Amino acid sequence: MNKSKSKRLRILVSNDDGIDSAGIFALVREMKKLGDVTVVAPHKQQSAVGHAITMNYPLRVSKFNKNGKFFGYAVEGTPADCVKLAVRSLLPLPPDLVVSGINHGSNTAINIIYSGTVSAATEGTVLGIPSIAVSLTSYKSQDFLFAAKFARKLSTLVLKKGLPKATLLNVNVPAVPEHQIKGIKITRQGKTNWNDTFDTRLDPYKNTYYWLTGELEILDHSEDTDQIAVMKKYVSVTPIHYDLTDYTLLETLSSWGVEKVR
Amino acid sequence: MNKSKSKRLRILVSNDDGIDSAGIFALVREMKKLGDVTVVAPHKQQSAVGHAITMNYPLRVSKFNKNGKFFGYAVEGTPADCVKLAVRSLLPLPPDLVVSGINHGSNTAINIIYSGTVSAATEGTVLGIPSIAVSLTSYKSQDFLFAAKFARKLSTLVLKKGLPKATLLNVNVPAVPEHQIKGIKITRQGKTNWNDTFDTRLDPYKNTYYWLTGELEILDHSEDTDQIAVMKKYVSVTPIHYDLTDYTLLETLSSWGVEKVR
Repeated sequence: MNKSKSKRLRILVSNDDGIDSAGIFALVREMKKLGDVTVVAPHKQQSAVGHAITMNYPLRVSKFNKNGKFFGYAVEGTPADCVKLAVRSLLPLPPDLVVSGINHGSNTAINIIYSGTVSAATEGTVLGIPSIAVSLTSYKSQDFLFAAKFARKLSTLVLKKGLPKATLLNVNVPAVPEHQIKGIKITRQGKTNWNDTFDTRLDPYKNTYYWLTGELEILDHSEDTDQIAVMKKYVSVTPIHYDLTDYTLLETLSSWGVEKVR
Repeated sequence: MNKSKSKRLRILVSNDDGIDSAGIFALVREMKKLGDVTVVAPHKQQSAVGHAITMNYPLRVSKFNKNGKFFGYAVEGTPADCVKLAVRSLLPLPPDLVVSGINHGSNTAINIIYSGTVSAATEGTVLGIPSIAVSLTSYKSQDFLFAAKFARKLSTLVLKKGLPKATLLNVNVPAVPEHQIKGIKITRQGKTNWNDTFDTRLDPYKNTYYWLTGELEILDHSEDTDQIAVMKKYVSVTPIHYDLTDYTLLETLSSWGVEKVR
């Protein structure tokens, strides 16, 4: 007997662009073809919040309608807050899958560590639920259909195969018409730097303020990296985890005499 | 010729507990024995902010005095903002070392991904500077002296040996009297879960709000993990990096047929 016939899949969708964004709307429409979708997402844009969680303030939740119908729960918190609150409190049963996105803009290379989209999926993984983060590599494009379809199909595969306990998939989809997509690549996290600069400005009261700006510098041009794969119009699928241990240095450190520091 | 004789070391100190915390004060006092220290830290507590950076708002900076003397720059932003702004804009020359802490409370196991203390050091690493995060495993203890001395001595070793390009050291010091410290262990990131729960409460206007609470559950009791090492009164030194790729799954994914998802 097929298990999926006996129960409906439960899917939790979140994001970091806020519950009112076009990307999450497209994702939800596709994911509904797989099962019951609950949306729990930030009430407003939360980009670059990293894996922030709210401990010193309470979280508030409100019901959010879209086109006159209930769409999901809007949380005054971060993407990680949304997933934690959904799984631990709002949902009657834990979901079978967490999908975060579709982000407006890529989450590749160094940007993964700043990404709210990835942090929502990471939180799903932390909670023991197979999780996927999905981003479209454009801040401007509103055409999320191909990315949403890919998210749905990859979800089916993930639900069939399972994911290792502390690993999630980070997906980046090139913002090009579907017929220009060259294929799908399994990638590693690319090596890049931000050449950050801060605009130093004066406010109307002559007080200085600083505004972050900068350009991404690619340090590794291999096609098996997320960054280059999407530039070459491939969908990029990167398995990432949150065991941050650098096992290579672990072995070296002892020879330094770290244990003998007095 | 010893290079250190020709120029003074430049050390950047930040944290996530805020510039007015006891931990950063103790750290700065010790680090001044090594070289010139600049403090750039959040103007108020920023715990559990993860690797958040501020892009949609400007950053403001003010000079902060302690005991009637200039102590450092207080930034209305996150720990990662502080380090980025210091290195890219406030400091005339990049520092030789970034030290973040001393945090009030441990940053081990799963908590590393939520940690503002670690994110400040990570940002230093992203900017190409050897970086160390230091935490004392107590929210209550105000005795940061041993942890500060250890940070100084480890810094000397790090400056001598260098660190790999994308790797930092995450240090946790048990909050026990110095004579009870059993030694130093090089560790890996432990495996734990938060058994999160949310207190559901009603505000004076009968609106619901949720407050995060929970207990840490240890899933791996090996002594070579950060979590267990500090519980057993060892100083824990963990090399961590921000290449999040799960290289093990990378090889498996292809056999799943991910590249053939249509």
